[in-house]
Amino acid sequence: MFYLKQISESVLKEVIKKRPSVSHKGDYGRILIIGGNENMGGAAIMSASAAVYSGAGLVTCASAPENRSALHARLPEAMFLDYHDFSQIITVIKSADVIVVGPGLGLSQHTNKLFALIFTHIRQQTTLIIDGSAITALAQEPKLLKTIPNCPIIYTPHQAEWQRLSGIEIAAQTPQVNQSIQQKLGATVILKKHHTEIYHADNSSSKIMIGGPYMATGGMGDTLTGIIAAFIGQFKASSAADVLDAAVYLHSLIPTKLSHEKYVVLPSDIISSLPQVMHNYLV
Amino acid sequence: MFYLKQISESVLKEVIKKRPSVSHKGDYGRILIIGGNENMGGAAIMSASAAVYSGAGLVTCASAPENRSALHARLPEAMFLDYHDFSQIITVIKSADVIVVGPGLGLSQHTNKLFALIFTHIRQQTTLIIDGSAITALAQEPKLLKTIPNCPIIYTPHQAEWQRLSGIEIAAQTPQVNQSIQQKLGATVILKKHHTEIYHADNSSSKIMIGGPYMATGGMGDTLTGIIAAFIGQFKASSAADVLDAAVYLHSLIPTKLSHEKYVVLPSDIISSLPQVMHNYLV
Amino acid sequence: MFYLKQISESVLKEVIKKRPSVSHKGDYGRILIIGGNENMGGAAIMSASAAVYSGAGLVTCASAPENRSALHARLPEAMFLDYHDFSQIITVIKSADVIVVGPGLGLSQHTNKLFALIFTHIRQQTTLIIDGSAITALAQEPKLLKTIPNCPIIYTPHQAEWQRLSGIEIAAQTPQVNQSIQQKLGATVILKKHHTEIYHADNSSSKIMIGGPYMATGGMGDTLTGIIAAFIGQFKASSAADVLDAAVYLHSLIPTKLSHEKYVVLPSDIISSLPQVMHNYLV
Amino acid sequence: MFYLKQISESVLKEVIKKRPSVSHKGDYGRILIIGGNENMGGAAIMSASAAVYSGAGLVTCASAPENRSALHARLPEAMFLDYHDFSQIITVIKSADVIVVGPGLGLSQHTNKLFALIFTHIRQQTTLIIDGSAITALAQEPKLLKTIPNCPIIYTPHQAEWQRLSGIEIAAQTPQVNQSIQQKLGATVILKKHHTEIYHADNSSSKIMIGGPYMATGGMGDTLTGIIAAFIGQFKASSAADVLDAAVYLHSLIPTKLSHEKYVVLPSDIISSLPQVMHNYLV
Repeated sequence: MFYLKQISESVLKEVIKKRPSVSHKGDYGRILIIGGNENMGGAAIMSASAAVYSGAGLVTCASAPENRSALHARLPEAMFLDYHDFSQIITVIKSADVIVVGPGLGLSQHTNKLFALIFTHIRQQTTLIIDGSAITALAQEPKLLKTIPNCPIIYTPHQAEWQRLSGIEIAAQTPQVNQSIQQKLGATVILKKHHTEIYHADNSSSKIMIGGPYMATGGMGDTLTGIIAAFIGQFKASSAADVLDAAVYLHSLIPTKLSHEKYVVLPSDIISSLPQVMHNYLV
Repeated sequence: MFYLKQISESVLKEVIKKRPSVSHKGDYGRILIIGGNENMGGAAIMSASAAVYSGAGLVTCASAPENRSALHARLPEAMFLDYHDFSQIITVIKSADVIVVGPGLGLSQHTNKLFALIFTHIRQQTTLIIDGSAITALAQEPKLLKTIPNCPIIYTPHQAEWQRLSGIEIAAQTPQVNQSIQQKLGATVILKKHHTEIYHADNSSSKIMIGGPYMATGGMGDTLTGIIAAFIGQFKASSAADVLDAAVYLHSLIPTKLSHEKYVVLPSDIISSLPQVMHNYLV
Repeated sequence: MFYLKQISESVLKEVIKKRPSVSHKGDYGRILIIGGNENMGGAAIMSASAAVYSGAGLVTCASAPENRSALHARLPEAMFLDYHDFSQIITVIKSADVIVVGPGLGLSQHTNKLFALIFTHIRQQTTLIIDGSAITALAQEPKLLKTIPNCPIIYTPHQAEWQRLSGIEIAAQTPQVNQSIQQKLGATVILKKHHTEIYHADNSSSKIMIGGPYMATGGMGDTLTGIIAAFIGQFKASSAADVLDAAVYLHSLIPTKLSHEKYVVLPSDIISSLPQVMHNYLV
Repeated sequence: MFYLKQISESVLKEVIKKRPSVSHKGDYGRILIIGGNENMGGAAIMSASAAVYSGAGLVTCASAPENRSALHARLPEAMFLDYHDFSQIITVIKSADVIVVGPGLGLSQHTNKLFALIFTHIRQQTTLIIDGSAITALAQEPKLLKTIPNCPIIYTPHQAEWQRLSGIEIAAQTPQVNQSIQQKLGATVILKKHHTEIYHADNSSSKIMIGGPYMATGGMGDTLTGIIAAFIGQFKASSAADVLDAAVYLHSLIPTKLSHEKYVVLPSDIISSLPQVMHNYLV
């Protein structure tokens, strides 16, 4: 039978390391979040906030210009780019260590243009996280899929998005089938569901046994992308699989704990708890 | 003599249920808040915030474009729609489980157009909550009243608004008279006053014996609409009357408790307390 | 010798009353804050926030349109008016219980136009609080001074502003001289300084012996105007002199207490403490 | 061997003084922050916030107009100037006690114009702090460097910026070499690195032995500029060297303490802790 490793809390101790004394923000990841159209700016803000609060060195958010004020009002630590300013976006794509595309981006011609920009200019060593509507956009444009670059790719679909990308009906999304498609894609797949499953690029797979329905609220997935991006940007001593396992575990661990005193746990609660909770796992 | 059931705290235990482990945000209500003209954006923000903090799955706020930045700066968890963008609003109306119209909307031609949009496109199973100036707008436009759709309707007037809608002078607003008009309207009426009264669609009626003058501040009613919307979106196992009783009770219970340490209790205080207080009623 | 009564903490117990159970926001004052040009929006926001947090029933802030987003992001409880929209401002002037003019308004032709608007439309029973640059504007336009309306007027100058309005050099601002000018003005004067002095309309005078240099930061005076406005709007059972004494005392009492743990006390700190501290004086 | 004095905690007790009872905001520094282009407004907001929270009397932020809303939403205590409005900026330059130029300003023609404005209108007694991209801008424009005014100047480069300004490769940045260039510049140099070094205008030099990699996040340097500006504006009884030592020490002391419970310490955390931590050093 197909076996998904159950991620345990110990992965947090293995991955979250005491930082070397002599280091600087460039060592902890240059993250570019591309998301937030004129209606869904909050998604990009939550992704960028999660990245900053989980320790990313430098975070830039490329979004609709309408979202600039709210981003800076909540998160002055991040930089902003108008997502129509292709020349500046190209510059940041070229120097980013991790790029997240999708939170609150929506489906539009502009989304496809941003994909083309990323696919053309991303470096081979940069990790690309593809989330939310960006997954649907890719699934709908086979031409785009063909131009996917050679860098590490992580998809973070929920089950309906995974169906669109993989062609597998939700009922048929068994680990074995999921992994076979993931291997064809040559990417990592984080399948968000009750007990989220991760199909790693190294062909291992894992799942979390924590999290719960107090997390069933808008913005949860956006928050996950920011944590993943920050973890990849920082924790280079661990394997890619361990880093992802830790990020996904942490994202559900915080609301699991907070749910002992809150009926629902909002993304904003998770974000503000990140620095304290991460500290607990320093050995 | 006419008897209004006194709502007791126990209704919170009956209505607020532990969520099933396997569930997702779509199970907890798609809420659309239509409110906030260019002067009263705060009202829509408070309504949307109350909905998110009391556990709604997905909240969209259709408002004047001037209110986008403040909404996202306070509440990145919600989505935004420019309330002039009828085509997008229609899409969201068609998929909403609960629609709130009124908080900070004001009286204008645009308000009437939004009503026409809602009345045309709302689904039969969607609950429509009509609040504040939207009640006055309806009362002033008998033509609109005639096109009211067949879905469950909840009015949340204060006494002067109830007078406009019902034609009953405040002094004459006895339970018996209130209920007779409510039955003609074929809707639920939540009459906001000292000891708020609820005239349910099933012809039962109830009132709260808590709350107080520390709540006499702008935004209280807007906050109530958000809690009601989230409760209807989530708690489908209880009767409509119990769900409303619980929402109205909770909205006054929180400031009643906070008033032991605060001279006035602001809507923002109530909103941020919702997840903790709701947790207390989980059995 | 001229005697200024030292205000004591007991005035807070006398003025801050338990609210009657059956009452509504209209009973606690309709406050209009006119302030905040395109550079000094924060001043109007602090004034409006102080009014809301000290219990005002309904607060509207008329300001440069650039300040709308920040106001709602900090204080959704307040309504906004574009201060170029004279027709709407007139409506609100006519129904206001207290009007504050000045915080962050600056000196300009527009300031003078707003004065003309207020002077023409304010009701006799409405209290007008004139603060900051609005005092200087009046002092510079004797024509304006001549059209001052018959309603209760409160000036809240610091010493340099008082010199401009009264013609008295700071060194010569003795209580006796101050009072003689105050009586000519037929207004209340709150002279902000180390141990702020109040020259009441009833010819009594008082001063506070608390407060300190931890309050020497931008926005302190703006915050005071909001507290005064809210107190006048709410506490109608006490004499005008007691109400002002209480407002001025409270505004310095909070930072005096907070200074035991903070090197400087910001207006935002004072504002957020208001509901708790006011509660302490309920008998 | 070249000796850099190790700054000890005691300098905080020496510099942070109880304020005289009779004093006003004008005594605690008029600070002008010039920074924040349309992409990096957060930097200017953090600098201004740090200045306000560490006790500056009056803070004005000249920035791209896109940053006004976010500034006021986070920090109503500060005033705003559109950094294209040269006439108003000149007025504020002429009355400022401390000017910070650079946080989030970026390299552009506009940056150079702002420099020309400052250099022409700054008073001899005003301290000019040159940070971030403004250092690079100067380094790239030898013409600008020649017009540097006669007032006290403080550069706050990180090592790469110092290389650009001084011409010294990072590996060759020994204290002796650093000081020789600093003396040629006739300015103070705060070289930000692991154990930040200060080369004072009086030819003394010092360094901190605290701080750590939990500070490796965007906005740290911007926050430092605000603290330095506020300290210079307030603490006139101590030597310039002691004041700078204290500001730099405090900026690293707070995150050093907070790092016992947080994996990363964000600029926003440092800023909000300033009033309490400064209070601890009052004798």
